[in-house]
Amino acid sequence: MIRENMGGTNLLDALLRPRSIAILGASDDPTRIGGRPLAYLKAAGYAGRIFPVNPKRETVQGLPAWPSIDAVPESVEFAILAVPAALIIEAARACGERGVKACVVFSAGFAEAGPEGEARQAELLAVARTYGMRIVGPNCLGLFNATDGFYPVFSTSLDRGLPPKGRLSIVSQSGAFGTHLYWLAKERGLGMRYFISTGNECDVHVAECLRALAEDPGTGVIMAYLESAKDGPMLVEALETARRNGKPVAIMKVGRSEVGAEAARSHTAALAGADAAYDAVLRQYGAVRARTTEELVDIAHICSHGVFPRGDRIGLVSISGGIGVLMADAASDAGLDVAPMPEATQARLKEALPFASPRNPVDITAQAFNDFGLVESNLKLMAEEGGYDGIVVGFSSVAGSPVFAEPLLAALGNVRRSHPETLLIHSCLVPDALRLRFEAAGVPVFPDPSHAVEAFAAAARFGRAFAREERPAPVLPAPADIPRRPLGEHEAKRLLAEAGVPVPAERLTGSAGEAVEAFRAMGGRKVVMKLVSPDIPHKTEIGGVLLSLADEEAVRAGYATLVERAALHAPQARLDGILVTPMLEGGVEMIMGVQVDPVFGPLVMLGLGGVFVEVMKDVTLRLAPFGEEEAMAMIGELRGRALLEGARGQAPADVAALAKALAALSRFAAANAGAIESVDVNPFRVLPKGQGAVALDALVVPRRS
Amino acid sequence: MIRENMGGTNLLDALLRPRSIAILGASDDPTRIGGRPLAYLKAAGYAGRIFPVNPKRETVQGLPAWPSIDAVPESVEFAILAVPAALIIEAARACGERGVKACVVFSAGFAEAGPEGEARQAELLAVARTYGMRIVGPNCLGLFNATDGFYPVFSTSLDRGLPPKGRLSIVSQSGAFGTHLYWLAKERGLGMRYFISTGNECDVHVAECLRALAEDPGTGVIMAYLESAKDGPMLVEALETARRNGKPVAIMKVGRSEVGAEAARSHTAALAGADAAYDAVLRQYGAVRARTTEELVDIAHICSHGVFPRGDRIGLVSISGGIGVLMADAASDAGLDVAPMPEATQARLKEALPFASPRNPVDITAQAFNDFGLVESNLKLMAEEGGYDGIVVGFSSVAGSPVFAEPLLAALGNVRRSHPETLLIHSCLVPDALRLRFEAAGVPVFPDPSHAVEAFAAAARFGRAFAREERPAPVLPAPADIPRRPLGEHEAKRLLAEAGVPVPAERLTGSAGEAVEAFRAMGGRKVVMKLVSPDIPHKTEIGGVLLSLADEEAVRAGYATLVERAALHAPQARLDGILVTPMLEGGVEMIMGVQVDPVFGPLVMLGLGGVFVEVMKDVTLRLAPFGEEEAMAMIGELRGRALLEGARGQAPADVAALAKALAALSRFAAANAGAIESVDVNPFRVLPKGQGAVALDALVVPRRS
Repeated sequence: MIRENMGGTNLLDALLRPRSIAILGASDDPTRIGGRPLAYLKAAGYAGRIFPVNPKRETVQGLPAWPSIDAVPESVEFAILAVPAALIIEAARACGERGVKACVVFSAGFAEAGPEGEARQAELLAVARTYGMRIVGPNCLGLFNATDGFYPVFSTSLDRGLPPKGRLSIVSQSGAFGTHLYWLAKERGLGMRYFISTGNECDVHVAECLRALAEDPGTGVIMAYLESAKDGPMLVEALETARRNGKPVAIMKVGRSEVGAEAARSHTAALAGADAAYDAVLRQYGAVRARTTEELVDIAHICSHGVFPRGDRIGLVSISGGIGVLMADAASDAGLDVAPMPEATQARLKEALPFASPRNPVDITAQAFNDFGLVESNLKLMAEEGGYDGIVVGFSSVAGSPVFAEPLLAALGNVRRSHPETLLIHSCLVPDALRLRFEAAGVPVFPDPSHAVEAFAAAARFGRAFAREERPAPVLPAPADIPRRPLGEHEAKRLLAEAGVPVPAERLTGSAGEAVEAFRAMGGRKVVMKLVSPDIPHKTEIGGVLLSLADEEAVRAGYATLVERAALHAPQARLDGILVTPMLEGGVEMIMGVQVDPVFGPLVMLGLGGVFVEVMKDVTLRLAPFGEEEAMAMIGELRGRALLEGARGQAPADVAALAKALAALSRFAAANAGAIESVDVNPFRVLPKGQGAVALDALVVPRRS
Repeated sequence: MIRENMGGTNLLDALLRPRSIAILGASDDPTRIGGRPLAYLKAAGYAGRIFPVNPKRETVQGLPAWPSIDAVPESVEFAILAVPAALIIEAARACGERGVKACVVFSAGFAEAGPEGEARQAELLAVARTYGMRIVGPNCLGLFNATDGFYPVFSTSLDRGLPPKGRLSIVSQSGAFGTHLYWLAKERGLGMRYFISTGNECDVHVAECLRALAEDPGTGVIMAYLESAKDGPMLVEALETARRNGKPVAIMKVGRSEVGAEAARSHTAALAGADAAYDAVLRQYGAVRARTTEELVDIAHICSHGVFPRGDRIGLVSISGGIGVLMADAASDAGLDVAPMPEATQARLKEALPFASPRNPVDITAQAFNDFGLVESNLKLMAEEGGYDGIVVGFSSVAGSPVFAEPLLAALGNVRRSHPETLLIHSCLVPDALRLRFEAAGVPVFPDPSHAVEAFAAAARFGRAFAREERPAPVLPAPADIPRRPLGEHEAKRLLAEAGVPVPAERLTGSAGEAVEAFRAMGGRKVVMKLVSPDIPHKTEIGGVLLSLADEEAVRAGYATLVERAALHAPQARLDGILVTPMLEGGVEMIMGVQVDPVFGPLVMLGLGGVFVEVMKDVTLRLAPFGEEEAMAMIGELRGRALLEGARGQAPADVAALAKALAALSRFAAANAGAIESVDVNPFRVLPKGQGAVALDALVVPRRS
């Protein structure tokens, strides 16, 4: 029976679908850590074999007990290790010897508890590897499979009843947090499939579980809680798998703030990586990150209905102008399109309901409640003629009135059935039993009108991500030959130019004569001259940049001046030469950069230059490599993007050239991730439309070997 | 009995505490609009006299009916007009003749329904004024007084039971929205005092009600819903009264977004004023504005416990690191201070609980649940030694476990009693009955940990507002003599200088000789020369500004150039002369301005100059006049304030001079509100600390008469 409902990977087979379980440290007391799992297994009617191990007892909770796992007469696929930390290694080894495929370790006292615990955890992992046995934990709450009644978990929340079965799976680094989420989901009426708390993650970690859940046919929605990812690339792979399989991943990553990140570090003792990197990766790979647990469960809740709109056109309906306006505010905040109804449709609506506001938000007024046929026909009109991807109706407490509840339920249910592609959401204040009847009719209920709108926005974000065509992976250039020493501006620009990032047509010169020749070659236009030395990274500080040199005399004198300044201020510096470059004016200054994140690898940063980056922190990130389409999306995320569109009377900037350069930089970053620490292209000047863009300065910092 | 519980103003006496009520259009059917109020009055045991008026019946719902209000044999203090719109004027007049002090008009078909309805509404108001009778509505849901069982209201939400009595009062422009709020409050267990829906506000409006509620001893917390204020100054007065009386006002003002504001306009047909003006006024006068209905009720809920912390130092406690980190993120978002525990206290906590993280967020670990004395003693340690203004404990579903609930209730209750000044909040997932027991013990429950933290932040905002010392009203200058015609830069600067806004030591000159003399008088420093003409507001566009003139020849030539350009590009313009002004460099460019809002009057705007204002919309507003302390608060609200603090290697700017100028501008705006439309001081250059600040350009637009 257990094997019937398979699917997904071997990991889920080993962890959640074994045919037998041993409980080391099994207790007769069903409220103790060693007793709870057995009580739950029995209550859930687990169909596999159960072997309590307890040398001091004949039976445990009515089942025959065994003195050790060696004494168990049949094969054991899964084991719970509910013994003190000091006994865990021995217990794990015994399990390995018996051919156990996976175990869960509840005990604390490992990596979270100082150097001694760390050593113990390393030993535990070594034992697991020796026997090819998977380990969940240590220091974890356990896991469960609600579909098959498999409950190796000691959460007290199950005291209040086992979860209803369903298609929601939860994976969480924190047992308490995972339980919190499970509890909230249960209150909403969401049925569970799998629950995994990963604890210290000595072996099995969140990303691996996510990847397996993304392949599990029985899982419809995934909720995840994360403090830090043990394996960044696998997290990316998991998210991409989920997206490709149309499985929404709603995720809580804590540690957004400095104080939060610090607390998270002290909590997990894990290498956390930059929160901004997580944020970028989650957005890039189609997961939706929540800020609060309520929001997280809202997302799982809306996704449980399986309707993922492809667009963000939202219709809003109320019987009270105020709630309509509130929802319009929320839709605007969420970046949704509160498009007006077509004029003709507005006219037809007005015909039926003369006092209505038919535009959008549509106020059908309490009048519509005299004839629920009108509610139904108007919603259908909106779905058919308004072209809305979703409709939120906000009927508040009126929907719960004994007089109105039944006809409203029928009306909304009919609309849902006749327009299954339109995500219909009902915001109302109704008793729980009635709420569940709306849900059963396929109409999700969100009491708060603003949250109803935000839930639509989340579903539409998944819809867009699921609909995204497979983009061919960018073709990476061959790795560049990057020396493990500081690089001068000219070298950095050469590397970037070879990768496709445009740089000015400039010349490195070794004498005043060469400089004048370069000036002539540039057609006699004004030039800029710069000291180039790997030993002088901040050349402006010693007067190492001269602007607006307009004739040969000035260029010749400029050469001498720069060499003098170098000799005076940085006598030890190796001089690569003097760079002569055309002076460019106009356009918009941007910053592009690369940072190699310890968890995810090379991330590309884009920001508007100057005060925007430094004071407003107006930047956006993506994992490298990516194409120009993604680069355009990055540009669109900048708060100050109006500056590129021609604010302040300027010409619109060449954003296509910017996107092309950004994608090229991302390919360079990906191809050379092992050889670099960071890249700074600052400023990167984006010229008016059609005129391209150029890196005015660049810094490549090779990785310290 | 009704009069016993008095207090507040005559408005509340007339509207909510009458000794008798007539119902015109009373229905025998308790589900009809004319029947519901009578059913509620009876159910609530209203102690006053009730006179149903219905010419077609002998009795209505068991009470003797009267053919008309004239026929009622006793005095009538209040009347419900539940008759069709066409009969309202006549009914109101009859009420006026009978000496009715106030009535409520349920009917629609007034100002919301086009010109005819507008005329009818104007007539209704005229009738009310004739008789000195107050009117609530028309087009409203009614009102109620839960304390005294007075229910002139037809909300269907009361079908599900009358509200519990308490100290929450609600005033709302929308009946449906008000009901929504009431329902949410009831679900939280908040008891009601007064409910007023104001509808079309032909007479009684939200601000007037707010002012009365702010004086009502029986009201502890006020929730308000607003689309637009009919009387801006009265709203300000109401908020200031509430603040002075220590009554929190939680407010929802919809129409934040453009699409929302448009919908609000079409809904109310009222002059809306700028949403930003409301936002500024609410912040300035100590109300807290909510974004969602849930947030609004969260605020009312936390306020119902009557603890308003003076500071924003928050202690966070969990038995799971994850929830602690989540709360730390939320606290950081809300601008709270997650200060670490004192070292010594951390050591003592560690002694009792070796596995705890004692810093803040404090993770006491599940171990503490073995001995609830530890939970209690640790919370007391935090309250006493941590100096926290509030503590949020996040125990999630564990708090609802049958094993832990009772001892936890006792522990938290003890902490609450021993430290009544510390706002103790419990975030947990527990059954309703248990939740209400925590509430009754003085420990508010917020299931979502982030919302618990946000609730503390709201309470602390009220705490700060309540604690604010009365600031003396700024002394206004005499109104300036502002002509009703366009003003030149020089005139504008003179007006501002007289008001205390610093301008450069500059001279308006009428000849090249005078210009040279001015240059000399400025010590031969570089100067700027500008065309000054009321007819050339954008002088840079015609080359009317010359920079960096460094010698007498240049000044003389510059004079000629400017006069030529004026003659060439604006031959009809009247020339006031050429302004010679010292060239100032360095410092930070700001924008200051004044706009006279149709609802609130003169609002002063502050923003960082250039791209910050235009692209990032980084501005803040205050109602004029205000002092330098408030001006400093405005500066602190700018996202780009780091620029004033010395970002990008600059010297810190003279913010004291900026604050002084801003306060002076606000006094000028208040003193001349009737004579001006707007003022622009752009740029306003703030020099390095100690060097002051100056208005480099200024535009005063007088009001068109």
